[in-house]
Amino acid sequence: MADKARLSLNQITTSSWSVSEAVEACACQGVSSIALWRHKIHEAGLDACVRKVKDAQLHVSSVCRGGMFPAPTEAERKKNIEDNFRAADEAAALHADSLVMVVGGCAGVGIEEARQMVSDGLAALVPYAGQLGVRIGLEPLHPMYAADRSVLSTIGQALQLASPYGAHEVGVILDTFHIWWDPQVAELIAQSAGRIYGFHVSDWLVPLPDVLLGRGLMGDGVIDNKGLRVLVEKAGYSGPIEVEIFNRKLWDSDPNEVLAQVIERFEKFV
Amino acid sequence: MADKARLSLNQITTSSWSVSEAVEACACQGVSSIALWRHKIHEAGLDACVRKVKDAQLHVSSVCRGGMFPAPTEAERKKNIEDNFRAADEAAALHADSLVMVVGGCAGVGIEEARQMVSDGLAALVPYAGQLGVRIGLEPLHPMYAADRSVLSTIGQALQLASPYGAHEVGVILDTFHIWWDPQVAELIAQSAGRIYGFHVSDWLVPLPDVLLGRGLMGDGVIDNKGLRVLVEKAGYSGPIEVEIFNRKLWDSDPNEVLAQVIERFEKFV
Repeated sequence: MADKARLSLNQITTSSWSVSEAVEACACQGVSSIALWRHKIHEAGLDACVRKVKDAQLHVSSVCRGGMFPAPTEAERKKNIEDNFRAADEAAALHADSLVMVVGGCAGVGIEEARQMVSDGLAALVPYAGQLGVRIGLEPLHPMYAADRSVLSTIGQALQLASPYGAHEVGVILDTFHIWWDPQVAELIAQSAGRIYGFHVSDWLVPLPDVLLGRGLMGDGVIDNKGLRVLVEKAGYSGPIEVEIFNRKLWDSDPNEVLAQVIERFEKFV
Repeated sequence: MADKARLSLNQITTSSWSVSEAVEACACQGVSSIALWRHKIHEAGLDACVRKVKDAQLHVSSVCRGGMFPAPTEAERKKNIEDNFRAADEAAALHADSLVMVVGGCAGVGIEEARQMVSDGLAALVPYAGQLGVRIGLEPLHPMYAADRSVLSTIGQALQLASPYGAHEVGVILDTFHIWWDPQVAELIAQSAGRIYGFHVSDWLVPLPDVLLGRGLMGDGVIDNKGLRVLVEKAGYSGPIEVEIFNRKLWDSDPNEVLAQVIERFEKFV
């Protein structure tokens, strides 16, 4: 059983809440870590968010998200990198464990070119983030997002992309929704030892209700979250475990009830 | 440019047609190969199908599909294997290049157990099929189908599953919709040399309209079908190229027009 002390609420799970509301609810329900999304940070203002999490003594497990490097023109790619610098600034101010990268898709540029743009974008970002003490967490996304969200699809690919950098600079974010299907998942988690910056859980529902907004609460689908959590621990990761659920029905529900369910399912299925 | 002589109509692309209608349309529009689905074969009767394709001098590139091995009880698994024997009988009667395997998902049994059931199912099927001269084509399906359709998700995994058997007994079916995202796709296609039993094309639309019924016509999405076709040829495959498109809109259209579009797109984008 995972210790509730490791639970981190990824803010997208209770998408209707502001940063302020999410932080207060975590404090109230005994959740000690939170992952914040940038559009929510911008709504509230960075300084206010920093004060809020400090006052509530919450730990920020990650800032979501940087990345989205590929673009058809150099001007756009430069703008994307600038935006990643701002994301690193925000992660630094919030003392987040890492800045999560959703690297971007290939629509409009081609998959080989997109991968090169991701590699180039990282080369620009990592030194900047390093000066701020911000670690870059590469999150492989499920291959069904390769066209529009992430040409980084496997843990193996993430480790290769991280390899030119130090283990304190660039690591991987392991999200069970994205990696559970991989026939090599156990050996790849083991190979990630020393570079695991985060661990996310949710579930894969059958049938899948929606490509983007169809993730389930742990226990409602086919993912062995507990088994994967054990593998991630064996690889040396003992940090926060984020519950990150994109689900239209949950988003339309009372977020207090959703958080209560998250805690219950975490204790039972993670 | 791929030679039109290599085009094979996978019957599911024109799903409203019977075997008889699909065969006649292929003959009429100069398509020399066809892939038949078992529910359509059963509707028409196997003997009638055999006569039909023979009279039309059509080549049968594959029979779709065997597989679906995993099940919670031994009785069900045995029944599934029996059904695969019948599929092999049908593929033999039709002189199909191979019997395509969609191996089955993990819902209800767990992914590790499901993979073992697939391996066990193949061990039962291959000797039977071999006696009939039927080759077993393992088709890795996109990882988004791992829960409900196929725990076989990558070419690497298919090659490993095929490795205990001769290259004339068990091979792989490479479908661009399922493999295009794989960061190792080029090296895995090269490794498949000598075991490539089939090559399928379609396209990945952005955004994806539907998990199951949202494939696109070649040219409408992000897949580099031509580039992948060249890699498959370099690996030694020069057989039929099936166009296999699960798409609700196409299914609701006039199948004659769909076939005309398939031919046009094949000549332009494959």
